[in-house]
This record gives sequence, C-alpha cells and structure tokens, in this order.
Amino acid sequence: MPVLVMKFGGTSVATLDRIKRAAKRVSREVANGNDVIVVVSAMSGETNKLVGYVNETSPMFDAREYDAIVSSGENVTAGLMALTLQEMDIPARSWQGWQVPLKTSSAHGAARIDDIPTTNINDKFGEGMKVAVVAGFQGLSNEGRITTLGRGGSDTTAVAFAAAFDAIRCDIYTDVDGVYTTDPRITDKARKLEKVSFEEMLELASLGAKVLQTRSVELAMRFKVKLRVLSSFEEYDPNAGTLICAEEDIVENNAVSGVAASRDEAKMTLVSVADRPGIAAAIFGPLAEGGVNVDMIIQNISEEGRTDMTFSCPVDQVARAEAALAAAKERGDVNFEALVSDKNVAKISLVGIGMRSQSGVAAKMFKTLSDEGINIKVIATSEIKVSVLVDRKYTELAVQALHDAFELEKA
Amino acid sequence: MPVLVMKFGGTSVATLDRIKRAAKRVSREVANGNDVIVVVSAMSGETNKLVGYVNETSPMFDAREYDAIVSSGENVTAGLMALTLQEMDIPARSWQGWQVPLKTSSAHGAARIDDIPTTNINDKFGEGMKVAVVAGFQGLSNEGRITTLGRGGSDTTAVAFAAAFDAIRCDIYTDVDGVYTTDPRITDKARKLEKVSFEEMLELASLGAKVLQTRSVELAMRFKVKLRVLSSFEEYDPNAGTLICAEEDIVENNAVSGVAASRDEAKMTLVSVADRPGIAAAIFGPLAEGGVNVDMIIQNISEEGRTDMTFSCPVDQVARAEAALAAAKERGDVNFEALVSDKNVAKISLVGIGMRSQSGVAAKMFKTLSDEGINIKVIATSEIKVSVLVDRKYTELAVQALHDAFELEKA
Repeated sequence: MPVLVMKFGGTSVATLDRIKRAAKRVSREVANGNDVIVVVSAMSGETNKLVGYVNETSPMFDAREYDAIVSSGENVTAGLMALTLQEMDIPARSWQGWQVPLKTSSAHGAARIDDIPTTNINDKFGEGMKVAVVAGFQGLSNEGRITTLGRGGSDTTAVAFAAAFDAIRCDIYTDVDGVYTTDPRITDKARKLEKVSFEEMLELASLGAKVLQTRSVELAMRFKVKLRVLSSFEEYDPNAGTLICAEEDIVENNAVSGVAASRDEAKMTLVSVADRPGIAAAIFGPLAEGGVNVDMIIQNISEEGRTDMTFSCPVDQVARAEAALAAAKERGDVNFEALVSDKNVAKISLVGIGMRSQSGVAAKMFKTLSDEGINIKVIATSEIKVSVLVDRKYTELAVQALHDAFELEKA
Repeated sequence: MPVLVMKFGGTSVATLDRIKRAAKRVSREVANGNDVIVVVSAMSGETNKLVGYVNETSPMFDAREYDAIVSSGENVTAGLMALTLQEMDIPARSWQGWQVPLKTSSAHGAARIDDIPTTNINDKFGEGMKVAVVAGFQGLSNEGRITTLGRGGSDTTAVAFAAAFDAIRCDIYTDVDGVYTTDPRITDKARKLEKVSFEEMLELASLGAKVLQTRSVELAMRFKVKLRVLSSFEEYDPNAGTLICAEEDIVENNAVSGVAASRDEAKMTLVSVADRPGIAAAIFGPLAEGGVNVDMIIQNISEEGRTDMTFSCPVDQVARAEAALAAAKERGDVNFEALVSDKNVAKISLVGIGMRSQSGVAAKMFKTLSDEGINIKVIATSEIKVSVLVDRKYTELAVQALHDAFELEKA
C-alpha cells in the first residue's frame, strides 16, 4: 500500500480541536487508500515553555538533559493524535523517537539522522494499522540517550521518514498555505507558487523564507522526496499548497521564481589587508572557529600589494567577528588597517533556476534598484541566485520594485 | 558507597525554586557520603492536565497511549533536577523508565514492576556520577511500550529502586511531615509518630491516611526497605519525619498506634438469604466480577435455614453492587428477600501491632463509643486492627473520643 507522510507543526496541533481537524485530514488520506505516517510537533508554546525552564535552571546547560526535557512536548501530541484517530475508528498508534528507533548522531541539540529502520512500523502496517504517529524532532543516540534535531527539526523528521518508507509524498501542514514569490507582508502582489524546485527552495529557505527547515529541503533533494507545503487551516483541496520537487518535474520556468529579503545582515570590511597567498584562509579560518556564519565574500582589486576584503554575516554575530579578527591581528596572522562594520544592511535576493538559461537577470535587477535610487553595497551571485546588500531601510521598496519588474505576480 | 533513595512528590517539585530546594537536600546527602538515586514526580498539576487532555480526547482511551502521554511530566522534572544538580557541581544525569530499563508487566495504567537492572546506573556511579535522577511512575513493557504504575506510582518506583540497589533508606519527601496518630484536621491532639511498622502503615494507608501509595508499603515490607516519610518544606533535620520499618526495629509498642477514619463507606445487607454451603461464593463472586471492592463481611446467625449477610464497600460502588446482586438473583444463583443499602456510614479503625499482646483494646473501644452515644453497626477485627462502621455524622466525635481514650497524644 502506498505510504504518505503528513507533518503537522505546532500551530496545527495547538489545541485538542486543532488536533481533531488535523486527524480529519489524515482520515481522508486513509480513505484514499494510503498507509499514513503522521509526524507531529509539540503543541505550540510547549517547546518554548520547556526551553525557558532549561535556560532558567542552567544557562550553560548539559545538552543531553536539554534534549530529554524539550522532546517531551512531541510525545504528548503523538499520543493525543493516536487517540483522536482511534476515536475515528482508524487503527493508529504512537511512536516516540527511541521506539522507532530513529537513530542519530550524538550531537545533542542538533543531531543528524543516521538511520530509520522500517521494520517495527511496517510490521504494524502489515497487521492492519493504518496510521503511525511519530513524535517529531527527536531521536536516539548510540549511547541510548534522547537527541533532538534542532528547532524546526520535525520537518526533517518527516522528510527522513518519507525517504525511509519510500513515501509517495511528504505533506508539511503549517500556518501558511504555501511558498510565495515573496513575503506577502511586504507586497500584496505576492503570488503563491504552485511548484518550486528543491534548489530554489533551498535558496529561499536559507534567505529567510521560514516555511521549512533548510535541512529538510536538503534531505528531500538528496532522496528525491516530493514535498508539499500547505495550510492546515484551509478547506481540504488535493491540489493545495506548493509542491517542492525536482527540477525535471517542473515543465517551464520563469527566469525568477521569487524575491527573498533578509533584514538581519551586517557588512564588515577589512581595510588595507596585505594581499598575499593564504590571506583568505588567515581571515576566514578564525571567523569560522569563532562561530561566525560568513555569507557573502568580496575581495576588491589589489593595489600596491594591499586590498580591501568585505564579507557579510548575521548582525548578531558582529561582536564575535570583531573579537575573532582582533585576536588574529594580535597573533600576527593577519594585518589590516581598520575593520569597518555596517550593521544597517539587508540582503535582497532573486532566486530562479531559469536564470541558468536566461541572461540579463542581474543587469535588470541592478537597473531596477538604481531607478529607485537604491545604492548597492555588495553583489554576490550563484547559478540560480543574485544577492545584493542594500541599506536596511530600502528593504520593502527593493522587494516591491523587483517583484513588479520581473512580473512575479503573473504565473 | 552506600546508596540512598530520595523521592520528591509533585508539590515538592512544583516550581523551579522548589526543585532547587529539593536539590539542596540531595546535595547534603551527597556531602554525607552517599550515592543518591532521586525519584521525581511531575510538577504538580502537570499530570492532571495531561489526564484531562486524554479524557477529553477519548473517554474510553487506549491505555497504552494514555501511558505514553501522562508519563511525559516526570521526564521534564527528571531533566530539570539533573540540570539543577549539575549547576551545584554535582555530577548527575536523568534516566527515563525505558532507559533504566524499569521493566514492568503490560497492565497499562496499573503495571507491576518485574525487574530493575542495576548495571547502567551502577556503571555511572562507578565513573564518578553522584546522583541518578529517575523519572517516577513509569516503566517499559515487554512489547517496548511505556507503562505507568497508577496514581501515586512514584512512591512505588522509589521503593523498588531502594530494593534493587539495596539502599540504606528510602526517603519520601512530601507535603506532610510524617504519619500521625490520626488526621490532624480532626483533632489537634494528633501526634506525629516517630516510627511505625510496615503492617500498621499498610492498614493506615488502606484506611485513608493518604501519605503513601499502599503498594509502595507492601513492596517495602517484602524487601525490608527502610522507608521514611518527611516534608520537603521543613528545615533539614536528619531525624525528621516518620520511619516506616520492620516490627523488630521498633523497641516498644503502644497497643494502639493510630485511629483511622474513612468516610466514603456504605453498608449493604442481604435480608433472609437461604443459608446453604456455597452461599458466600454465590454472593461475593458476582460482586468481585462486577468490580465491587468488598471490605467487611458479617454473617449473622442462621435461623430456620435463612440468614442475613452484611458487607461494606466504597459508597460510589453501591449501584454497581446492587446491579450485580440483582442479576445474580435473576439467574437464580442467590435467593434473598431484600437488599438494604445504607450510604451514610463511616469506618473508624484502631490500628496497632501491640494489640497482638495486649488484650482489651476492642472492649475499650466499644465502651468509649457507647459512652458517647455512638451506635456500632458492624464490627470487624484483624490481628492488628479493630474496625467499626458508625453513622457518618459521628466520624469526628468517634475519632476524638478514641484518640483521648487511648491517650495517643502521649508517646
């Protein structure tokens, strides 16, 4: 029998009534002839409450105890979902991570999934069970301790189950009804995408479209899991939401699929760095060790053996970056005249797999921004993305102008 | 190193501050040179909240899902207690039931403990861990599912760990400071007992002194675990609370240790039953099958081949008892003229192992009640107990009079 994975996030299971609504969606898929694996998050608010307890008790907490504590919210929802389905006469039972067992690395708080044996659950499907309800976000380490996959980890749980059980699709039910051409709060012209490729979704997810955990998209791409994002608050519609799928499943592409904006960026420039082989490693090695997530990197042309090096990072990591670079200078590993930090920038990105075959996207982007009087501070490009840093105050204006220029409101 | 078991009930871990207070008590016992096993309940209110969710979702719930859900509260407290101890620089970690694993029968909601392997925890004690924090109330069935031991089951968890680890003592921290000669709300002459025997505690526990779960006392008696009940809200005192121990550890006994009162009793009389061999089985078989907990049984003398049969049971089981007996009469299994139910009775009991060697306790009890004008409806005795049923309105008066007559305020 085909297996379908359905994942319900915290807002979709926030109350007993909402759990019942979610269960009705599950029952429809069972009636359609599927065996269903339901992955649930904690009731919304629960995980935050537990994280609050942990932080108040022990600011530098033991991550193993953190995981044992915060994973309990998902266990409650899994049991309640199983009971709700049973009340609807659907044979169902719950599984906690260690019962599957969903085996992970021992990196508590951010564990990687190693293996999902299918025997236990498939045996029950064989005995007539129709729905396996799985507590998301959690797993079991080799040491026999509970691990968690990081915030949003239930998305990754769902995709991993879909891969392990060779599911026909993985439906992610959330509080938005799909992936949009841009943030609908910025422009009401934002249009829901019917389909988007894994590659585009990865860029969008990491650029601030917080619909899906980035790792879950990576995993779906690797194992070719058809992912669908849809709202648990809309009426049932078999074609609802946005399908995230392989490029070959998308017949025709616009050059640009979406505009993403990320506000919490900072730009840092090392002025007059000695330009010698190994200088990039000397700069970015210490930053990586210091836990700074460097995003864009630009090296200007060299003059008289010296150059300027600019990079961007999340704004809350500026202090960390400054400390790491000051220490490197102190040790004599790197020599620069000054470090200039600009904490008032935003990153605006155009994303689209169609860019590969259609030229002129970047040029049109720059002209559009220029026409609006928006100065571009840094440019970076990849095969399917053009990103620029601009003053943060221009975020909305830039997104609206680009959305219009590329006519993203049209399918 | 000696192992001490300390159990903290829901009110003792109701907030992060209280968990900290409890952890301080644990730290003192560690400083005294003990390895400590701490058994925790859920933060007070949590289990009720989860039980509420289950009942609302599914009135005739699957007990396996019930157990998976309601056991999560203890997991949270266990992790928080471990973190709190770590913050005090005490090496500690948490164990959930399945991690020990605490193996139980598959009677979900009321599972019996089969085995507690000591290897995992002892290995960690060997590596320098000082405190194992165990989530109470829960275990693991042979089918790999989470079980619970019934309400108050954390007491039983604690005693079972004390037995398995051959602990020097099992301290039950609760919101009362010990076992009293009677309910202090009925008479302010009630005196805290320094020591009480397992047998007496069993009678007191089952008679309504709700300090300890009855099963935990049975288990302590079987494995000769020294149990101490004490308050987590009083200043630290190594001799606090009441010690529940074997009879031979109590040097001298009063004839009577305590007076217990149980209000929610009913008396039922089958009038004019045919008195023939097998008649008791014909009556009490159907009652047992109907789920009626029959307590006292009195058969009056027989006249002309007929007799009256009286028994007592909890008042909320009267309807069930009437239905079971009506059905038995219908089937012709038992023949009686009438069934008279009296729902307005209370059971007053004197308990004391000294009764075995000191006569006249029952006679003195009857005279005391008679002097107060209290009519006795039913009498039942065991080796260490005399119980009577009286009108419920006399409960307080009877307890006060007996407490005075036997001078229980004196040690």
